[in-house]
Amino acid sequence: MSEQITLSLDDIRTLSETILVSNGFNQAHASAITNIIYTNQIGDCHSHGLYRLFMCVESIRSGRVDGTAAPTIIDAAPAVVRANANDGVSLLAMQAAMPLLIEKAKTNGIAALAINRCFHFSALWPEVEKLSEAGLAGMAMLPSHAWVAPAGGRRGLLGTNPFAFSWPRQGNSPFTFDFATSQFARGEIELYRRAGKALPEGVAIDKEGQPTTDAEAAMDGAMLTFGGHKGSALSLMIELMAGPLIDDLTSKESMDFAEGKPEAPYHGEIILAFDPTLLSGGRALENNDRAERLFADVIDQGARLPSQRRQAAQAYNLARQAVEIPKTLYDDLLALKQT
Amino acid sequence: MSEQITLSLDDIRTLSETILVSNGFNQAHASAITNIIYTNQIGDCHSHGLYRLFMCVESIRSGRVDGTAAPTIIDAAPAVVRANANDGVSLLAMQAAMPLLIEKAKTNGIAALAINRCFHFSALWPEVEKLSEAGLAGMAMLPSHAWVAPAGGRRGLLGTNPFAFSWPRQGNSPFTFDFATSQFARGEIELYRRAGKALPEGVAIDKEGQPTTDAEAAMDGAMLTFGGHKGSALSLMIELMAGPLIDDLTSKESMDFAEGKPEAPYHGEIILAFDPTLLSGGRALENNDRAERLFADVIDQGARLPSQRRQAAQAYNLARQAVEIPKTLYDDLLALKQT
Repeated sequence: MSEQITLSLDDIRTLSETILVSNGFNQAHASAITNIIYTNQIGDCHSHGLYRLFMCVESIRSGRVDGTAAPTIIDAAPAVVRANANDGVSLLAMQAAMPLLIEKAKTNGIAALAINRCFHFSALWPEVEKLSEAGLAGMAMLPSHAWVAPAGGRRGLLGTNPFAFSWPRQGNSPFTFDFATSQFARGEIELYRRAGKALPEGVAIDKEGQPTTDAEAAMDGAMLTFGGHKGSALSLMIELMAGPLIDDLTSKESMDFAEGKPEAPYHGEIILAFDPTLLSGGRALENNDRAERLFADVIDQGARLPSQRRQAAQAYNLARQAVEIPKTLYDDLLALKQT
Repeated sequence: MSEQITLSLDDIRTLSETILVSNGFNQAHASAITNIIYTNQIGDCHSHGLYRLFMCVESIRSGRVDGTAAPTIIDAAPAVVRANANDGVSLLAMQAAMPLLIEKAKTNGIAALAINRCFHFSALWPEVEKLSEAGLAGMAMLPSHAWVAPAGGRRGLLGTNPFAFSWPRQGNSPFTFDFATSQFARGEIELYRRAGKALPEGVAIDKEGQPTTDAEAAMDGAMLTFGGHKGSALSLMIELMAGPLIDDLTSKESMDFAEGKPEAPYHGEIILAFDPTLLSGGRALENNDRAERLFADVIDQGARLPSQRRQAAQAYNLARQAVEIPKTLYDDLLALKQT
């Protein structure tokens, strides 16, 4: 095992904010990004924790992400908030718009937040879980880059298009999931390629559209969605919901926009919020018990709720007020700081 | 090939309404049910067309479906309609509530319809497609009976839990899909059992929770969701969204309620409607073009849009003003009529 170093929870924040500010993000952006990096890191979601700072820094150094953009929050309709990130990272717009989204959902029963013109690199689960902490159910979707072929197709068109959902539990951490609609994450294929390992069947096609287990050929070809034609349909829905529905880019348009640069994808995001009180005719408490019986029946038969492992890590790390990361990662992070 | 008979489009309606009314449905229910059976039949969706009349009749003969129940439509919140079917079939409640759902979505940007206390046996695609005909995107979900195990589990807990989505296309039939989140439909397993055929891998487990390809063992055990843990998470979401969120039954509660009777499942349903005009800041037309480019890119690479085949059948049958059904089915349907 590689050498680990221990960081206090404050260390995570300080390290993240220092790196971000020294690279040109203003304090508001640095703090919004750090909130999410922190949440991921204490859940042991390493790929979306401090490790993401490399992508943040790459994105601002490429010169296209505006590290000082102030988002514009638009009260677009009784149940719609539109947040224009104005070419900044999505997270400050999300954070700024969240209170209005929550208020609208609690007033109207259901509400939507469209985030537009943003660079995006974060997991969705902290965003929907934030809604559940406010007593709401949440759903979120976004496109990415056109690496994934539709079922029956021969080339990349869809993004890895994540879908996240969260449900508020009285006295318990929310029920939350967040998955890519591609069979594998893009980074996983890359890991197979570097290791020279064969991919499992059904993950990718080559550039002629033929099934392949060769990771190199897969990187030149296209990935496949999970779940065959059903996963493909869902991924198309995500393109529509987080693209044309909210006046923002599809995965293909986002990839064209990036011109091959390794920065975070630029596109939109949609977040939906549902109020269990208004939707249940005021019977949210009785229905919380009903949901708990459902969860108990999952666990009782030896299955796991989607976020159980992550939430256990969170509880553990919060209790000890610290996390561990590889020393090599820490050293590489320190090197990101501009002096 | 078995002997076919040709029915005019009026014949479909007359046959359906006569069977329903003679078995105790009032005219309003018979007409709402017939609208959906007609729509399925002209799309060559045979299992949800006239064939469904057997289940309708079985359900009312069992004495629990109220064939004369008037639904109660409740304006529950600015963006929420609740429709209590009062132990009737879902379709009259759906039909009665749809105008208010559409109005609320167009006023607020997004709106939800919760249908409660209903018996349900219809496909969801005609319901979301109705929203798209009104210029809206639509999403619908519902539970069924607890035949499906969660990922990693050993027994049935989740329903076959269908998920449907529709997107309005200017001058084109909507983009629509409607799939069960179980790997197979319940009826498919039954067909394998009758034919004595082995199931594919990954479709079911036996009553000890072990993978099985034996259809008999699968009927005693549990089905699996599509897409492994991702499909399972989605199915759990559907339980929550169409159950506790709207104060209605989970698939397990619905199965307990049925007490083994072969009638249609009794539970709730949620339908969401999204207004592309309000969500796009008034740029629905430009974004229709963007969605069309996405669809063109699916078709251009040899893939198919989810409803292409059904919509082609619909166009063909509408043009010839007739459909064909097996003579044996026709004879069995005639025998359903009460004199």
